[in-house]
Amino acid sequence: MTQPIPAPVLPTRGSRRPLGLGEVRITGGFWARRQQVNASATLDHCRQWMERVGWIDNFRVAASGGPLGERRRGREFSDSEVYKLLEAMVWEAARTPGSALDADVDELTDTVVAAQEGDGYLNTAFGHPGRPARYSDLEWGHELYCAGHLIQAGVAQLRTRGDGALAKAAIRAADHICHVFGPGGANPGLCGHAEIETALAELHRATGERRYLDQAALFLERRGHGSLAGGEFSPEYFQDDVPVRQAHTLRGHAVRALYLASGAVDVAVETGDGELLAAVVRQWEHATARRTYLTGGMGSHHRDEGFGEDFVLPPDRAYSETCASVASLMLSWRLLLATGDPRYADLAERTLYNVIAASPADDGRSFFYANTLHQRVRGTVPPHDSDRPRSESGLRAPWFAVSCCLPNVARTLAALGGYVATADDGGLQLHQYADAEITTRTAGGERLALRVRTGYPADGTVAVTVDEAPTGPWSLSLRVPGWAGDGARLVTPDGQRRPVRPGTAVVPGTLRTGDEVRLELPVTPRWVHPDPRVDAVRGTIALERGPVVYCVESADLPGGRDVDAVTVDPSVPPRDGEGDRVVVAGELTGARSGGWWPYAYDRPPAPAGERAELTLVPYLTWASRGPSTMRVWMPTAPGAAGERAAAPEG
Amino acid sequence: MTQPIPAPVLPTRGSRRPLGLGEVRITGGFWARRQQVNASATLDHCRQWMERVGWIDNFRVAASGGPLGERRRGREFSDSEVYKLLEAMVWEAARTPGSALDADVDELTDTVVAAQEGDGYLNTAFGHPGRPARYSDLEWGHELYCAGHLIQAGVAQLRTRGDGALAKAAIRAADHICHVFGPGGANPGLCGHAEIETALAELHRATGERRYLDQAALFLERRGHGSLAGGEFSPEYFQDDVPVRQAHTLRGHAVRALYLASGAVDVAVETGDGELLAAVVRQWEHATARRTYLTGGMGSHHRDEGFGEDFVLPPDRAYSETCASVASLMLSWRLLLATGDPRYADLAERTLYNVIAASPADDGRSFFYANTLHQRVRGTVPPHDSDRPRSESGLRAPWFAVSCCLPNVARTLAALGGYVATADDGGLQLHQYADAEITTRTAGGERLALRVRTGYPADGTVAVTVDEAPTGPWSLSLRVPGWAGDGARLVTPDGQRRPVRPGTAVVPGTLRTGDEVRLELPVTPRWVHPDPRVDAVRGTIALERGPVVYCVESADLPGGRDVDAVTVDPSVPPRDGEGDRVVVAGELTGARSGGWWPYAYDRPPAPAGERAELTLVPYLTWASRGPSTMRVWMPTAPGAAGERAAAPEG
Repeated sequence: MTQPIPAPVLPTRGSRRPLGLGEVRITGGFWARRQQVNASATLDHCRQWMERVGWIDNFRVAASGGPLGERRRGREFSDSEVYKLLEAMVWEAARTPGSALDADVDELTDTVVAAQEGDGYLNTAFGHPGRPARYSDLEWGHELYCAGHLIQAGVAQLRTRGDGALAKAAIRAADHICHVFGPGGANPGLCGHAEIETALAELHRATGERRYLDQAALFLERRGHGSLAGGEFSPEYFQDDVPVRQAHTLRGHAVRALYLASGAVDVAVETGDGELLAAVVRQWEHATARRTYLTGGMGSHHRDEGFGEDFVLPPDRAYSETCASVASLMLSWRLLLATGDPRYADLAERTLYNVIAASPADDGRSFFYANTLHQRVRGTVPPHDSDRPRSESGLRAPWFAVSCCLPNVARTLAALGGYVATADDGGLQLHQYADAEITTRTAGGERLALRVRTGYPADGTVAVTVDEAPTGPWSLSLRVPGWAGDGARLVTPDGQRRPVRPGTAVVPGTLRTGDEVRLELPVTPRWVHPDPRVDAVRGTIALERGPVVYCVESADLPGGRDVDAVTVDPSVPPRDGEGDRVVVAGELTGARSGGWWPYAYDRPPAPAGERAELTLVPYLTWASRGPSTMRVWMPTAPGAAGERAAAPEG
Repeated sequence: MTQPIPAPVLPTRGSRRPLGLGEVRITGGFWARRQQVNASATLDHCRQWMERVGWIDNFRVAASGGPLGERRRGREFSDSEVYKLLEAMVWEAARTPGSALDADVDELTDTVVAAQEGDGYLNTAFGHPGRPARYSDLEWGHELYCAGHLIQAGVAQLRTRGDGALAKAAIRAADHICHVFGPGGANPGLCGHAEIETALAELHRATGERRYLDQAALFLERRGHGSLAGGEFSPEYFQDDVPVRQAHTLRGHAVRALYLASGAVDVAVETGDGELLAAVVRQWEHATARRTYLTGGMGSHHRDEGFGEDFVLPPDRAYSETCASVASLMLSWRLLLATGDPRYADLAERTLYNVIAASPADDGRSFFYANTLHQRVRGTVPPHDSDRPRSESGLRAPWFAVSCCLPNVARTLAALGGYVATADDGGLQLHQYADAEITTRTAGGERLALRVRTGYPADGTVAVTVDEAPTGPWSLSLRVPGWAGDGARLVTPDGQRRPVRPGTAVVPGTLRTGDEVRLELPVTPRWVHPDPRVDAVRGTIALERGPVVYCVESADLPGGRDVDAVTVDPSVPPRDGEGDRVVVAGELTGARSGGWWPYAYDRPPAPAGERAELTLVPYLTWASRGPSTMRVWMPTAPGAAGERAAAPEG
């Protein structure tokens, strides 16, 4: 690298080089609006709440040397939320040069760094008067996890400003960790929550210092030998049951699993460890095919915030933590950069539109922590002045006792330009579609400038205009999403319109300045069938339009009905409704009666239903009109408990 | 009462008087075998484990006055397991007079009571050097919960021996609690885990002391005002969201909810509080109709061991804690005694056969803590020398870090004779069927002796012979289970065979010595359909035979298949197989292939299946032949994702 590229992930090897935030400017549409709300509302919202609940004050008290003890606020990992917010602010400052954010970053950094100790250690929950000793609870203490997020924030500063106090603090923290946990160091342990691995690998990439990569690799090798098993949770929860290079799937706590896999890809790519990379690819394939919700959400268990066993994907008990979707995007993007395989961008797109975009409210000031696919009871309005249980409301909440998801979404949205496009020696690849201006240099050092114009995802046409082409041959590739089936068309500058299959569509020939190509994606609404092994959704169907998953919500049902009154008729093709709505045919059933026991020896009678047109809305917008019930998977026949007739004699 | 009746529940008012262990002797068959295993293996197994893990030693250390501090073993509620074991031993000693158990009870009581303090307080986790202060954590400390189980054990002793050191300790503990928590006492709080309420009410019944009942009522009134909300859990978890007399359903932590409801019935009955009784009836009806598994199991959530929302009953994430089934039996029995309604005995029967009997292994030395209705992955053999996570094994385990379920099942089995029959002024009512000898006195003081002979539940004929009839008129009632539909027949001494409907069948006329009546219940296998609102089992069907729920288990499938290969054809009537097995028609499908993404725009092809006869086994026996996969709800058509054909254009 000749100079820092402001990108969240920047491998020195691999199949593709990501374009950074300076190269991809999202200029309008779906994601620009969300970036704008993130910048103007969410960052400030997070900062205010972190002050209010004392998580920033923890650093002030720690810096003062006074006893933290009982005065410390928040959970053991609350420092990391401040770091994630700092990372978000750093990316946002780079995205919008000239804003006052640089000064805000410096001010908050001063507060944080004042608590850093002489040897580089920085954590407000351990090692202070009245607090447990440093590294006395690696399993649950999250010290290395917190340091990892500090380092990621520092890496963001290295890649945007080139240097700064935050970057320096990150490097000091990393040096301390290498000293304590490195070969011959005092501590041969590992953290209960993966994160330090990917952070150290990125710091290696940002500084060129090999020791950070070696330390990341060492942490990876230490995991999988059953040394972590905390209380009610088994080693699997910590991904400590099987070494990462031997595991066959993602398992245990979803965020931990996905952060760990991300770190493993980083190390595999940087060290040329094909076996390790293949192991993560295998785990991604298994978990995507068997442990992933239609929305891209991962992790179905509430108890341990973990992956369930294969095909355990109950919509009404979907945990699908927002942070797991951020972690899934991190992993998918790394695998895309390593392999060039467009499936990773397919999952990233699905996750972006249906989990990451679903979490924040329109105003960027309340959030879903968990993302259920079926809300059975109308939510209760969360009190705006108190902490909320993380997943029990049925409505977005302004803050949580564990508020990881808010700054995690914020840093992702601020850095989103870094997940759009890649380059290689042959040209440029577009993976996600948004109004954007893309300016980069080819391997030969020539300028290449493109404009992308699209109404995506509402509209399926993506127009790419070449504003400045290099002189030599180069090629433009466009991802054709899997959901496009055989409906996608590519229109080339010569006016030819040709079908393109899901995967990577390479525009034939070499585009010149002024040329325009158009990708036409079929965004007519379509029914979706689940794998029959997903028992929890047998006998139901869902609907998608483009990359957007739809749902039926009580707000659109007549007569105050709830969504359990709905069945749909997939034999009638769905059609576009007003705005982003879709209209389908179905039935609205009356109230179902039931006896004192919900199981019967005769097939329960189907309640009287009336044919109806039903309005579906994008899942990502649900619960934005007040408390509601909602479901993504809709039954296809009322009252059906089985497909064959039951025997007359029960 | 003229003299103590050895019964686990003994209201002074209500619709029915329970017959005690001295009046009902289970002499053979299904339950006698389990009582025998409980007596000969489980009690000793529990005691040995409690010594091994130090839970009994906690009392010794506490009695010595030395610092418990870090030396204390087990969770904060481990004392209660010792008390539950003591209660089980007391009932068992009464069931089998002349055994050495009385001496064992006295010895273990000595150990426990030595730790009781001068003011009656007894708890090894609080109030000792190095331990938190008494009542410093009412929310999670379980001190009153533990005392409740001590009192229940003491009540058992009062009702079997009339007196003893255990009873005295219980009374001292209760007096202490009334002093501290009573009107004008130092502490206006309540316990995070209900149990003390029913215990105090029973102690009132056993001693005639009104203050215990008043204290139970006071604890009930204190709950429901949002004073408990611990960490991640909301007041609902503790049933502290709504006062018990206002709540519309059972909710939150299932064992807590069911213990609380049991205490509320006790208080309602003793105080003649019809409003309170009606409230619990309403809650039972709602929870039974909407929040109960086919097995009778309650509580679907793993995260909080709690009831889910209505119809959230995923079979593969069924928590259905064994202790919740014990608590459900406690509640059902109390409601039956209060109202005489046979539905409560129906649920009790279902719970007894399909949860309580399913938990212990044949040898009484390993147990299910949670009782899933769908095991997707073959279990791993639990190591016999370490604690086990409570629900993750897929096999019964000898012990758990939280081992409440073992002594809870043990005390239930030992006292089971107390849940079989009741009397009232008009005669005698049989609620559960087992080989038994029943001897009691009528309201007029005359002897009444019956013999019950049956092969139940394998056989549906229950023969009742009158060995000694009172001279005056009296009547015998027999419960006809709901599952019998219109298939039950009653054969009277005159040879008449008449249909009897589910509910209570009163034998016409007055039976005389030597008379025999026969109840014939239709135990042919039958299909069961779920309420269509139980989304998680849409498109599936289950099978019952008599009160026994069946399942398909991989051990009975050819070619090493797992249960996801099974679909059943309910149009073919099921038939009896060998022993207790049932044979149904269905298909065995081959392996299903899948792409990298488990959702498709064309209906997934049904994999090739072969017609097959499938052997089902009683759910209660599952996992007794080694690791297996299992399901209760079986799909009725392979590969079906919806009942109507999908539109050709996806």
